Amino acid sequence: MTDFAAIKAMFHLPEGMIYLDGNSLGALPKAAGDAVANTVTDQWGEMLITGWNKAGWMAMPMQIGDRIGKLIGAEPGHVVVGDTLSVKVYQALAAGLDMRPDRKVILSDSGNFPTDLYMAEGLIRALDKGHELRVVPPGEVAQAIDKDVAVLMLTEVDYRTGRRHDMPDLTRRAHAAGAVTLWDLAHSAGALPVDLAAAKADFAVGCTYKYLNGGPGAPAFIYVAPRHAGQISTVLSGWQGHEAPFAFDLDYRPNAGAERLRVGTPPILQMAALSAALDIWDKVDMWDLRRRSMALSDMFIAGIEAACPMLRLASPRDAQARGSQVSFAFDEGYAAMQALIARGVIGDFRAPDIMRFGITPLYIDEGDVQGAIDIIADVMTNRLWDRPEYKIRAAVT
Amino acid sequence: MTDFAAIKAMFHLPEGMIYLDGNSLGALPKAAGDAVANTVTDQWGEMLITGWNKAGWMAMPMQIGDRIGKLIGAEPGHVVVGDTLSVKVYQALAAGLDMRPDRKVILSDSGNFPTDLYMAEGLIRALDKGHELRVVPPGEVAQAIDKDVAVLMLTEVDYRTGRRHDMPDLTRRAHAAGAVTLWDLAHSAGALPVDLAAAKADFAVGCTYKYLNGGPGAPAFIYVAPRHAGQISTVLSGWQGHEAPFAFDLDYRPNAGAERLRVGTPPILQMAALSAALDIWDKVDMWDLRRRSMALSDMFIAGIEAACPMLRLASPRDAQARGSQVSFAFDEGYAAMQALIARGVIGDFRAPDIMRFGITPLYIDEGDVQGAIDIIADVMTNRLWDRPEYKIRAAVT
Repeated sequence: MTDFAAIKAMFHLPEGMIYLDGNSLGALPKAAGDAVANTVTDQWGEMLITGWNKAGWMAMPMQIGDRIGKLIGAEPGHVVVGDTLSVKVYQALAAGLDMRPDRKVILSDSGNFPTDLYMAEGLIRALDKGHELRVVPPGEVAQAIDKDVAVLMLTEVDYRTGRRHDMPDLTRRAHAAGAVTLWDLAHSAGALPVDLAAAKADFAVGCTYKYLNGGPGAPAFIYVAPRHAGQISTVLSGWQGHEAPFAFDLDYRPNAGAERLRVGTPPILQMAALSAALDIWDKVDMWDLRRRSMALSDMFIAGIEAACPMLRLASPRDAQARGSQVSFAFDEGYAAMQALIARGVIGDFRAPDIMRFGITPLYIDEGDVQGAIDIIADVMTNRLWDRPEYKIRAAVT
Repeated sequence: MTDFAAIKAMFHLPEGMIYLDGNSLGALPKAAGDAVANTVTDQWGEMLITGWNKAGWMAMPMQIGDRIGKLIGAEPGHVVVGDTLSVKVYQALAAGLDMRPDRKVILSDSGNFPTDLYMAEGLIRALDKGHELRVVPPGEVAQAIDKDVAVLMLTEVDYRTGRRHDMPDLTRRAHAAGAVTLWDLAHSAGALPVDLAAAKADFAVGCTYKYLNGGPGAPAFIYVAPRHAGQISTVLSGWQGHEAPFAFDLDYRPNAGAERLRVGTPPILQMAALSAALDIWDKVDMWDLRRRSMALSDMFIAGIEAACPMLRLASPRDAQARGSQVSFAFDEGYAAMQALIARGVIGDFRAPDIMRFGITPLYIDEGDVQGAIDIIADVMTNRLWDRPEYKIRAAVT
């Protein structure tokens, strides 16, 4: 059994704050400070350039990739860390389109995080081959998969509502229609059990600064299935993905496997923080986490619905159909969230009317949930956002 | 006058090491440790998601960009920090090709850093429109500029030899032929005076972990001339370059200016280190630095040539024609460099036979240069690399 009280003690949490925004930026693991300081002082400062070998910097994108891989059911050696999620979406999407040259449709949904759609638009403009980004409502994805679809690109858990797609089922349907799948796990990795290998996913990407607690601007990750790794094209063909990066050949030859998805020099300080954050996951059973996430979320929904009839649940009521966040719709949600933040309950707002609360069981417990319910009830019942002292500037992202 | 002794005291330098590899990874500014620790503990730890506004994280890519811009003669608001140099090359190159749709040639030289060529290859493969990467010897670039050239892509200072291109002249020639220019400043920014505006450069990119001392994996930068900024296409159209990133619109609309070159969430811990490193540059006059770089390099060349006749100068003898490094060719250079590293003189090796020494006047002085000469003379004269105790594993990059 995962000891969640012990896990919570591994995080630094600000005094007087109930932090329900770990789905946007995870809390600080106490060990991250020393890990980063050590990397700066003892590695950069003392080893200088030799740190690439002596401190193992060069191997970190694959080593950390494997640690993330364990949390998302990836085969060893097939998750690579680096860049931003946007860049990784582009990289996977380009490889996916290249696998289906006779098809022109990227199918996605309106619940996808906008940058995934933007990167698809940019790639389509660059390729200039008549590709089409087809965006349908989340509930119509299954029916929209047809023989024209080259890549089905979805975020498993909707960033606004927390609605969760059925990854194995949609992957199976995509494959039956001859399409390649690209899953964005931004709100899945560290939030719930994912089994990419069992789902037979083709590509996946994700970020590490949300539920994985890697810190602000922590690098992204990309997964490619072993059956594709040696064949995929690498549109972002940087030197770190070269078969022999230090031969400094003038011609590009991709690494034999998934490591070809490396691009440029990796961010060592960010990876030091991320590595410390991943140590915590060694002590967590993902199914324990999921059960606790669902129980805390159900408790939160019940408490809010009982106390705040003006809030309308915007997340699925069935816990199995959600990720690890709960959202409520409210016309004055932006102002109300500002007042909540001023009162120490940190959630966030997503246009047009979504008040979003992340449930991160590594450092949120029943006491936090009850405390949040009590404050939200006070703020909503008394319309505190109408009072001038609560009109602070809201947090972003 | 720049007080170089005071500047040197701002760096941590390992005991017993003469570090001539600042052209690969710059030394640690003493202030960087506290800056990063503060960002981790006081910002990430205490502000959590509100750090994006409260700590100014969101503004850092443009603010730090302007600080770098001052060192390379860029107009304010036209240098953007983020991603890796490889990704920034791709981004600039795609925008440049898009500006010349009727031309099919990317002209570069064999002295370019390989990843620039690899990224061009990847872009050409993706576009699949018959573009050609034409690679000529460095001395033949001027003659090779013709009406077929869409983009002239060059690294100003050759990473192996230190040979420096004439940026204003080649830019003028490129423009006369109707081509767009992309300058890689990896070995220029912080190494010598650069004046992008005066040279009328179109695009520039560079990294910040070499002469700018931003730390391992520090982010890259990209410059676009003001006359192009509002028109260029953004193939990597991520949400941070959107006109209104927090509107979360489904459609991409680029930011009105150079900020459209932002892509994904920026690496805050790396930027904290970089920002501390840039504080040092406020106290440095770039022309003082250049004079000192040339004097120290000339001293190094004279000393080595006097003591080590087996080493052949691989850098231009004329200091004006060099960047801020000195290279020697030697058949057994790899083994000899291993022995040098074992003796505390850190340079690096670049295939096939280049022994490379960076001259970084912020923290290298006459005593270091003389000390290095003495040790190199001992190692070379006595062929220390033949002795088993000197066969250590070499540093990379």
